[in-house]
Amino acid sequence: MSFEKTMEKIVALAKNRGFIFPGSDIYGGLANSWDYGPLGVEFKNNVKKAWWKKFIQESPYNVGLDCAILMNREVWVASGHVGGFSDPLMDCKDCKSRFRADKLVEEHMVSKGIDYASADGFTNEQLKEYIEKNNIVCPKCGKSNFTDIRKFNLMYKTFQGVTEDSKSEIFLRPETAQGIFVNFKNVQRSSRKKIPFGIGQIGKAFRNEITPGNFIFRIREFEQMELEFFCKPGTDLEWFKYWKDYSLNFLLNLGINKDNIRMRDHSPEELVFYSKATSDIEYKFPFGWGELWGVADRTDYDLSKHMEHSGEDLNYLDPTNNEKYIPYVIEPSLGADRVTLAFLVDAYGEEELEGGDVRTVLHLHPALAPFKAAILPLSKKLSEKSIEVYNKLSKNFNVDYDEAGSIGKRYRREDEIGTPYCITIDFDTLEDETVTVRDRDTMQQERVKIEELEKFIEDKLNF
Amino acid sequence: MSFEKTMEKIVALAKNRGFIFPGSDIYGGLANSWDYGPLGVEFKNNVKKAWWKKFIQESPYNVGLDCAILMNREVWVASGHVGGFSDPLMDCKDCKSRFRADKLVEEHMVSKGIDYASADGFTNEQLKEYIEKNNIVCPKCGKSNFTDIRKFNLMYKTFQGVTEDSKSEIFLRPETAQGIFVNFKNVQRSSRKKIPFGIGQIGKAFRNEITPGNFIFRIREFEQMELEFFCKPGTDLEWFKYWKDYSLNFLLNLGINKDNIRMRDHSPEELVFYSKATSDIEYKFPFGWGELWGVADRTDYDLSKHMEHSGEDLNYLDPTNNEKYIPYVIEPSLGADRVTLAFLVDAYGEEELEGGDVRTVLHLHPALAPFKAAILPLSKKLSEKSIEVYNKLSKNFNVDYDEAGSIGKRYRREDEIGTPYCITIDFDTLEDETVTVRDRDTMQQERVKIEELEKFIEDKLNF
Repeated sequence: MSFEKTMEKIVALAKNRGFIFPGSDIYGGLANSWDYGPLGVEFKNNVKKAWWKKFIQESPYNVGLDCAILMNREVWVASGHVGGFSDPLMDCKDCKSRFRADKLVEEHMVSKGIDYASADGFTNEQLKEYIEKNNIVCPKCGKSNFTDIRKFNLMYKTFQGVTEDSKSEIFLRPETAQGIFVNFKNVQRSSRKKIPFGIGQIGKAFRNEITPGNFIFRIREFEQMELEFFCKPGTDLEWFKYWKDYSLNFLLNLGINKDNIRMRDHSPEELVFYSKATSDIEYKFPFGWGELWGVADRTDYDLSKHMEHSGEDLNYLDPTNNEKYIPYVIEPSLGADRVTLAFLVDAYGEEELEGGDVRTVLHLHPALAPFKAAILPLSKKLSEKSIEVYNKLSKNFNVDYDEAGSIGKRYRREDEIGTPYCITIDFDTLEDETVTVRDRDTMQQERVKIEELEKFIEDKLNF
Repeated sequence: MSFEKTMEKIVALAKNRGFIFPGSDIYGGLANSWDYGPLGVEFKNNVKKAWWKKFIQESPYNVGLDCAILMNREVWVASGHVGGFSDPLMDCKDCKSRFRADKLVEEHMVSKGIDYASADGFTNEQLKEYIEKNNIVCPKCGKSNFTDIRKFNLMYKTFQGVTEDSKSEIFLRPETAQGIFVNFKNVQRSSRKKIPFGIGQIGKAFRNEITPGNFIFRIREFEQMELEFFCKPGTDLEWFKYWKDYSLNFLLNLGINKDNIRMRDHSPEELVFYSKATSDIEYKFPFGWGELWGVADRTDYDLSKHMEHSGEDLNYLDPTNNEKYIPYVIEPSLGADRVTLAFLVDAYGEEELEGGDVRTVLHLHPALAPFKAAILPLSKKLSEKSIEVYNKLSKNFNVDYDEAGSIGKRYRREDEIGTPYCITIDFDTLEDETVTVRDRDTMQQERVKIEELEKFIEDKLNF
């Protein structure tokens, strides 16, 4: 059966079933902010746990970190965010609409069929020149009466302490990476790690974007899963390849359809000046290809900048040969909300059943599914036994319990939220201590002993 | 052996071993901000996972939620935070020092031996009167030449969008609770939960405190683990007791010494006006008793306020009898950083060994320990086998690997970071596929088959 996979359907399912709600909903929301509901928080936590398992726990190279969101202002001076982390804004003098000049230029490039439609690296002057030369008009009112372009910094600023002046001004971090660089020495010293090694972090970051959108794809308050991998200069391109492959395999092992994934290497003119190589892993969303993961060879740029600004020696001394150097950095940086959306979209399906009914089903990898199993008593008289099974399983897994409606209806509800195993308790259960386990994807049923259920489920969670 | 458990020792261990570093350290820090290092992030994550397991996963009543930190401004108007969430500040006109007037009053009460030393609920006028009547002087310069007391709001404010005016002003949430109240209807509807049920959330909150301190006990950027439990009016005091006991047992089951815990019921004059009952669970830190957990019967105050301000009907309709009411709320609210500190302090010990040496040891519950086990090869020739065991175990647990130094030194290092099991690989291992497992607390050793290690460790993690 073919069906159309639209964002409208995904957003509706997400709200109706408690994956994702509009933020501050009863107050009319707050421009493109989102809250994760009971199923969404389990789902997203599973995505984060999967990343942590593969990138920290199982990796012999890497350790974790969890830094504060509020950092000393100088961190963002050194990183270049205070000076340069901004969007070029422009107003239409006639209709007062506000635009990102680079987006107007890029939309124009796309409309002209230009292959590499990017205004990355354009100065304000170049943007202005392009707009004038190509007679780009205001998309709202059609006039071409624009103000000058000005830089608008994307960092949220706030004040710490009792006064509000430039001395007390601080920022919500726009990325988690800098917290890792600032802690490089403390981590290396305390964990006695030798190069090569990496430091990973999962945490919130904030960007006051002018045009957030596409559900949770581009949001102002988002979560990152970043690894900064420190290696010896000269070995960096090898490690760049290693982490690119490792990242791609992470997605594939968790069941993402490889036809919906592509790897895009940045061309030389697209690379930021300090990067030797960058590749994006992109996913094919209903609204088009979007970046999930950026993997970049950042050379020694970040540590050098912090060394310069902080005055701390951030060289690494190799204990085997007393060689001293500033490590190179490979950064695989993944958006937790984006990849959660990708898993959700990828898992979504509509399937015609034998009787002609259609089921909506999320084919999520069991490791990512909000509930690992649902306990479904066939009769209210079986509550006691059913609760016993629920209590036993919920010691280890997040498990649903549903005794309302026909068994068919309950299967439909569990399919729609991606529960991989429905466990039916019937009157035979009381006699022989076995239950029926139905597989979400094959819809096949098998009889399993209660005492073997934990192992049965546990085995399916491997990836 | 008796020893002194001081904050200095705890803070030093935390920094040296990678539990907790000063935030923005290479830039001279940012007033009492802290970063969790490689061991700290595992430890704190284990504390959060333990809470989630007991309060969400295993509870048949509760579901989880994860709301945005940035919310619509009206949320904080309704909750009273815009109007009333402030500290009373006062300056010394002579030496220009700034103080919290209520803290000055409370310190004076303590010095006079007053049993219930709290200025909670004092108006500015009452504070001023107390200070004048008792001739309280500036603790810095000894004069009594104070300015008037003024209210200082503790919420961090920022601006969203491209203009900075009152229309675009928003706040970093000062608590996670309001996100739950605002989502009450969306969660109830999508999860089809019936009263009584609860919604739990773990997340960051921010308070621009004038006087943070005591390491991670009082910090400006902190993490909360909050449950809002919705029940029928009239059943609330029963549930209040239920969650009080449940919370206390959580701490005791995870090994906190009960002599270091006390439950303090708020007296009628101490209760905030909308609360029917409140109890604090306090821990005896080296700096004195400090609140970990506040358990409060908040009546229907919060939902009523949001109903009034948002215009949304937040009544609950009981499907069994069509009764309509605003649920009462029981709120057990726990600080994640505080309770992590309590577990750390409680686990800390110094013990004299047989030979006269002293070991520092963290007697952490295995479920909370950063590493569940450490793999210690007795010879570098055993690396291959040792890495095989490491790879096997690290699929399931966070595991350390250490081949540097004498076995005694390695035991000392693992004791100091609370690793419950040291697994020694020796030459017999190659023959018989067994290893020596040493217990951190008893220091007893036993021989265990490699294939039984996972089960051996798994069993110890139960609580």
